[in-house]
Amino acid sequence: SGRHCGIKDNGDMDLAYIYVPHSVGSAIVQSQNAIRSATLDHNDHVFKQGPVKLMIINSGNANSVTGSVGNRHVQQTIQAAAKHFKCEPSAIAVASTGIIGVPLPIDKILDGIALFDTTQINVDACANAIRTTDLVSKTATRTIQIHGQPISFLGITKGSGMIAPNMATTLGFIVTDLTMSSDICQQVLVKAIDASYNMLSVDTDSSTNDMVSLQSSGAIDLPLAPPDVVAVEHALTELCIDLAKQIARDGEGATHFIEVNVSGASSKQDAKRVAKLIVESPLVKTAIAGNDPNWGRIMMAMGKDPSVTMDESCISININGCGIFSKWQATLLTRDEIKAAMSPSDVIMNVVIGHGQYMATAWGCDLTHGYIDINTQYN
Amino acid sequence: SGRHCGIKDNGDMDLAYIYVPHSVGSAIVQSQNAIRSATLDHNDHVFKQGPVKLMIINSGNANSVTGSVGNRHVQQTIQAAAKHFKCEPSAIAVASTGIIGVPLPIDKILDGIALFDTTQINVDACANAIRTTDLVSKTATRTIQIHGQPISFLGITKGSGMIAPNMATTLGFIVTDLTMSSDICQQVLVKAIDASYNMLSVDTDSSTNDMVSLQSSGAIDLPLAPPDVVAVEHALTELCIDLAKQIARDGEGATHFIEVNVSGASSKQDAKRVAKLIVESPLVKTAIAGNDPNWGRIMMAMGKDPSVTMDESCISININGCGIFSKWQATLLTRDEIKAAMSPSDVIMNVVIGHGQYMATAWGCDLTHGYIDINTQYN
Repeated sequence: SGRHCGIKDNGDMDLAYIYVPHSVGSAIVQSQNAIRSATLDHNDHVFKQGPVKLMIINSGNANSVTGSVGNRHVQQTIQAAAKHFKCEPSAIAVASTGIIGVPLPIDKILDGIALFDTTQINVDACANAIRTTDLVSKTATRTIQIHGQPISFLGITKGSGMIAPNMATTLGFIVTDLTMSSDICQQVLVKAIDASYNMLSVDTDSSTNDMVSLQSSGAIDLPLAPPDVVAVEHALTELCIDLAKQIARDGEGATHFIEVNVSGASSKQDAKRVAKLIVESPLVKTAIAGNDPNWGRIMMAMGKDPSVTMDESCISININGCGIFSKWQATLLTRDEIKAAMSPSDVIMNVVIGHGQYMATAWGCDLTHGYIDINTQYN
Repeated sequence: SGRHCGIKDNGDMDLAYIYVPHSVGSAIVQSQNAIRSATLDHNDHVFKQGPVKLMIINSGNANSVTGSVGNRHVQQTIQAAAKHFKCEPSAIAVASTGIIGVPLPIDKILDGIALFDTTQINVDACANAIRTTDLVSKTATRTIQIHGQPISFLGITKGSGMIAPNMATTLGFIVTDLTMSSDICQQVLVKAIDASYNMLSVDTDSSTNDMVSLQSSGAIDLPLAPPDVVAVEHALTELCIDLAKQIARDGEGATHFIEVNVSGASSKQDAKRVAKLIVESPLVKTAIAGNDPNWGRIMMAMGKDPSVTMDESCISININGCGIFSKWQATLLTRDEIKAAMSPSDVIMNVVIGHGQYMATAWGCDLTHGYIDINTQYN
C-alpha cells in the first residue's frame, strides 16, 4: 500500500511498501550509473543475503549523492520498518526516487512507516505513492498456467523522465505467487529486463536510483521443468514490456508514444542499437511531435553508429502501416499522406535494415514543449 | 564567395565556392554516419587524387539519401564548375547541407554556378551562403609566425542542429597560405578536429553530410621542422575550437552556451567521455535553460558510463567560478546564489572527477522551447 508522509508539499502520496511475508526467492536488477544512490548499495547487499520480504519505497527524494547521511537514513528506515512490520532487518530493501543531492526528510518517513496498516493491501495506492512526474500510475498483471495451475505476476512501475536504462531503469516491483528460488528469480528477471526496460528511452538520461525487483511469495510450489521456466520468462517479459510501454506513454511532455521495430539485422546487438538510435534521436522525436514527414532524420539516426551492418538496397521504413521509404528511395506518398499516418498518438515504425534474421523493438516518446516546461522548472 | 541561386525560397544565399587555384595540399575529415550523402563518397575519392582546388557548397538541401540521382547531380555540379572556373574536374569537391531525402534542384545550382564572378573574394558572402538554421555566420582566423614569417589560417563553418560529431561534423572549410602537402594537411587537421569539432554537441544527432576541409594555397613555402608542424597544429586547433564554439553559441534555440572542463581523469578517453555526457544530457541542458541549480543532474550525467574511473572523494563541480559541490557534499551556497551563478549566457563548468592527470573540454548549449519550435516545423 501507500500513503502521504510529507516529502511532497502538495499532499500527494510519497511512501509505499511491498510486503511478501513468506518470500522464498527474490532478485533485483539495478542502475549501472557510476553515481549511485545509498539505496542501491544497501540492496546489492541485502538481496544477496536471502529472500527480501519487505520493500520500503519513497518518492520525491532520491537519497542519492547524500554521503554518509544517506546511508544512515537507509539504516534508520530499515530499523523503523523492521519494528513496525515485525520483519527481520536483513530481509528489508529500500528504493527512493526524486531529486538528487538533498537529504531525505527522515523524520517524516519514520513517522509515515509507523502509520502503515500492515494488514491492508492496496496496489493502487502503492503504485500511486511511487510516482514523481508521472501523470498516471502504472500496473500490469499476467497469468499463466503451469501444470494446470494458474500462476500470477503483478508489477508496478514509475517513471517519466531521466529514463534510459542501462541494465535497469526507473523503479519497478514485481511479485508472483509461484515458488521460485532467488537464483531462478534473478535468471528470469535479467532476461525480461533486457527485452523490455532496457529497450526504453524517454530522454537518454539514466537515473542513479533505478531498480526492478522480483519477489516470490512461495504460495504455489510446483516442480519447474526447463519449459516451465521458459514460460515464466515469457510471461515476465510480457509484463515488463507492458510496464515499459506505460512509462514511454507517460514520458515527460509526451504527445506521441513511439515503438520502433527493427528487423533484417545481422545481429541482435545491431537490431537493438538501431532501434535505440531512432527512438532516442531528438530530431526524430521533434519531427514526430510536429507530425512532420521528415523521414530523412530517421535515416540519419539509423546511421549514427558506423559499426552497424546495413544493406542500403534493403532499407525500408514504414510508419503506422504507411510505407514511406524502400529500395533506396521515397515512395510516392504525398507529404499530407505521411502526416496523416503520423498523426495518431501511437506511432509504430517498422524499419528493415538488411537481409539478416535479427530483430529488436524499442519504445519511447516524442520531444515537446512539455518536456522543456517540466525540466526547466523541476527543482 | 556566395550567392542566392534559388534552393531557399526566401531569397537567402544558398550557393558558395572556395577557390584555391594553386592549391598544393588539401585534406578532409568527413562524417562517420553510415548513411552518407553523395557528396561524401565523391570527396573521399577526389581528396585522394591530389590537392583539391575548388569546393562548391550549397545549403538548403543535403543531397543525402537521393540514390543514383544524387550521384548524377554531383557530377553535373562538377562539370559546370570545371567549365566556369576553368579548373580540372579531378580537383573539385562538393558539400551540401539541408534537408535529407529530397533531390537537389540541380538546374538552379548549375545556373547559379554560371553566374559566379570568379575574380571576386567575399568571405562574408561565402560564410553566409552555407548557413541553414544558423542565426549568424561563422568565421575565424589565426596568424602565427614561422621563421619570422606571418602565416594565416582562415576558416568558415556552419551548423546549429543535428550537431554531434563523430570524427567530423557540420561543414567547415579552412584555407592557409602556408605550403603544406596533403599528408601534412591531413595529419594536422585530424588532430585539430579531435579537440574541437569532435567535442561539440548541440543535440547528439550527427549529420549524414558533415565535413571539415583544409586547403593550402602554397603562397608561403618554408621548411617545416617538427616544432613548426606542432605550431601549425596548435594554431589550427585554436581556430577549430573558435569555430566549434561559434556553432555551440548558435545552437538551435540556445539561450546559454555551455563549456564543460573535466579534469582529474585517469585517461584522456575518460575525460572526454564525461565532458560529453554532461554537455549532452537533456536534463542538464534543461536545468541550465531554466537557471535551475539542480546539480544532482550533473552528477547523474557524469555517472552514465560505468566504465569511467571516478574517485568520489575528489569529485567537485564549479559553475562560473561558484563551487557548488565538493568532498561528496553540496557547498553551503543558497539556491539563489547558484541561480545567479548560472544566469549569464555563458555557463562554464569545471568538474573534477579524480586524482588523474587527464583533462578534456566539451562545448554545447541548453535545450529550450526554441529547439522544439524549430524542429517540429523544419520541413
